[in-house]
Amino acid sequence: MAVDEVVTFPMMGGDGTCSYAHNSQFQRGTVDAAKELVREAIVNKLDVGSYGYDNSYTVRIADLGCSVGPNTFISVQNIIEALEFKFQNLSLPVPDFQVFFNDHTENDFNTLFRTLPPRKYYAAGVPGSFHGRLFPKSTLHVVNSFNAMHWLSKTPKVNMLEKSLEWNQGSIKCTRFMKGVHETFQAQFRSDFESILNARAEELVPGGLMVFSLITGPSGIPFADTVQGATYNFLGSCLWDLAKMGVISEEKARTFNVPAYFPYVEELESLIQRNGHFAMERMQQLDQPMRHKTFPAQFYLSHLRAVLEGLIGKHFGEELLENIFNHINTKEAEILSIHNGKLHKEIEVFVVLKRISKN
Amino acid sequence: MAVDEVVTFPMMGGDGTCSYAHNSQFQRGTVDAAKELVREAIVNKLDVGSYGYDNSYTVRIADLGCSVGPNTFISVQNIIEALEFKFQNLSLPVPDFQVFFNDHTENDFNTLFRTLPPRKYYAAGVPGSFHGRLFPKSTLHVVNSFNAMHWLSKTPKVNMLEKSLEWNQGSIKCTRFMKGVHETFQAQFRSDFESILNARAEELVPGGLMVFSLITGPSGIPFADTVQGATYNFLGSCLWDLAKMGVISEEKARTFNVPAYFPYVEELESLIQRNGHFAMERMQQLDQPMRHKTFPAQFYLSHLRAVLEGLIGKHFGEELLENIFNHINTKEAEILSIHNGKLHKEIEVFVVLKRISKN
Repeated sequence: MAVDEVVTFPMMGGDGTCSYAHNSQFQRGTVDAAKELVREAIVNKLDVGSYGYDNSYTVRIADLGCSVGPNTFISVQNIIEALEFKFQNLSLPVPDFQVFFNDHTENDFNTLFRTLPPRKYYAAGVPGSFHGRLFPKSTLHVVNSFNAMHWLSKTPKVNMLEKSLEWNQGSIKCTRFMKGVHETFQAQFRSDFESILNARAEELVPGGLMVFSLITGPSGIPFADTVQGATYNFLGSCLWDLAKMGVISEEKARTFNVPAYFPYVEELESLIQRNGHFAMERMQQLDQPMRHKTFPAQFYLSHLRAVLEGLIGKHFGEELLENIFNHINTKEAEILSIHNGKLHKEIEVFVVLKRISKN
Repeated sequence: MAVDEVVTFPMMGGDGTCSYAHNSQFQRGTVDAAKELVREAIVNKLDVGSYGYDNSYTVRIADLGCSVGPNTFISVQNIIEALEFKFQNLSLPVPDFQVFFNDHTENDFNTLFRTLPPRKYYAAGVPGSFHGRLFPKSTLHVVNSFNAMHWLSKTPKVNMLEKSLEWNQGSIKCTRFMKGVHETFQAQFRSDFESILNARAEELVPGGLMVFSLITGPSGIPFADTVQGATYNFLGSCLWDLAKMGVISEEKARTFNVPAYFPYVEELESLIQRNGHFAMERMQQLDQPMRHKTFPAQFYLSHLRAVLEGLIGKHFGEELLENIFNHINTKEAEILSIHNGKLHKEIEVFVVLKRISKN
């Protein structure tokens, strides 16, 4: 992908066996692990100001990177329950709630809408990238986002794979482990995260909250020594196999990349501080039970497919998806050795930011 | 369809040749004919009150029964331009605009979102029936709806066709022309329209506007003598042909109906008056240029398919759609005689209602 090519690939839509909806147990773990922390943030940190006294008050909530459910419905429900508790506890009338489900324009909103559960809020879908403005000025009270903001707005112009000198033996390396490449992705993330904070600073009311989780790299550990890094390498080696088998072209294999970056927690902290629009109310490791468990190989492989199918289909062509994933799915031993080995696991960080009244 | 079965059938999605998007020229005529009237209503009748002085003010617009575009984008653009003019003219800062595109949950929102034009407003999709509440209390400023509110929330338990005594000759009549049947649909419309007014009264700010067009029956003319009535009769006779040919069952043909009602203009006026939440700012016949023109038979037949395909597919089964419409499409002479004959044409009425501050 070339620089400036905007990345818009959705998680797999529908509700088939390959769908994100059926392969999002990891994300469900995040929602559950964060439930009490979200509740606490809303009850103790959200400013309801003088609004609560006005009968026609509406509290607006946005879930950014919502995909198609069911996780987004569960996390929104947790927020609504916390808000109801807060208003009742303050002896204020419970306001109307309006919830905005946001994801890329190519997300399967039809499925999202058709599976909306019975609810106590007014629902709306908002298509578009959360790297830019999505909502009018000062209209949101709570912005939620679980494990979505590691996706970059575009892929820096760097290949996934680099041919080594031993070309004829098919030896390759994943360029993500090269210092210059890492820095290119880092710079893109910093710019993107700054854009996200600036857009939300405009959209949130003063005293409004941004509650989110983000997958971060373990401090001081090179990307190559993490599960994520090894997964990229695994993916690269599968693509290289497929190129050698003639299923995809070598050119396509080399020009593929995953537009994601997992920051170190210190990096995240300093970006938030430098931005200056938010007070950091909480930043802590999320105790994600799913990350302590081990699963069969096909669980990891299905998850990989649900997350990457859109991206891979767009780059290599939808018609090659079955061939590509049929090959990847044979690599049970490799995927298990990544997850069950001594590699460092990524850390989910939970963050609560409060919009500062001034600036 | 049984009583209480909620009607949720969308206009044909996507952008293929059978799609609503490609068969909505009639509706485009309405949008164009109403443009100046909408502008005048917004400039002269919408109360912006004291809000205009607050920099963080958002003006919210909803288009009810939006389908998939492009007409909804054009009518929303007309509203935005009128609002911009109004604020500039009052030397007030132009506020942020948020536009809600509403239609049934089964509408093709994916296509709607993917075809959104470049715009000066924040867009959102809202799935659900406009017969009920869709938005928080007092949050909308302008509600727009073109030729959508004749669709009923459910189909009264009345068959489309009734067998005559000459069953063996296959003689049938369209039950819509029977007095009792007409009254059943009328009662459903009155109840539905009351629900629409009550919901919008809650959602609109005081001084906010509801601008809409509605297809009405010409005063004093029986439904049987109108183009719409003849079209129902035509549809009924096609279904009866198909039943005799064994393509569909007689039972299915008889139990089909179209959940729509076209009120007389006096009826509409009295319903609005009785409701009491709105001041009638304008009610006039819309000079729809498309209704003066004549078209080739296939134009009318394509239009019929775009509007009814969802409903017919749901009742008879998607797999029979091609067979059903292949037969209907052979009836060029019949459809032309309906449109070019001496039957009374329906009248599009344009209405501007203003939410009264009290009650």
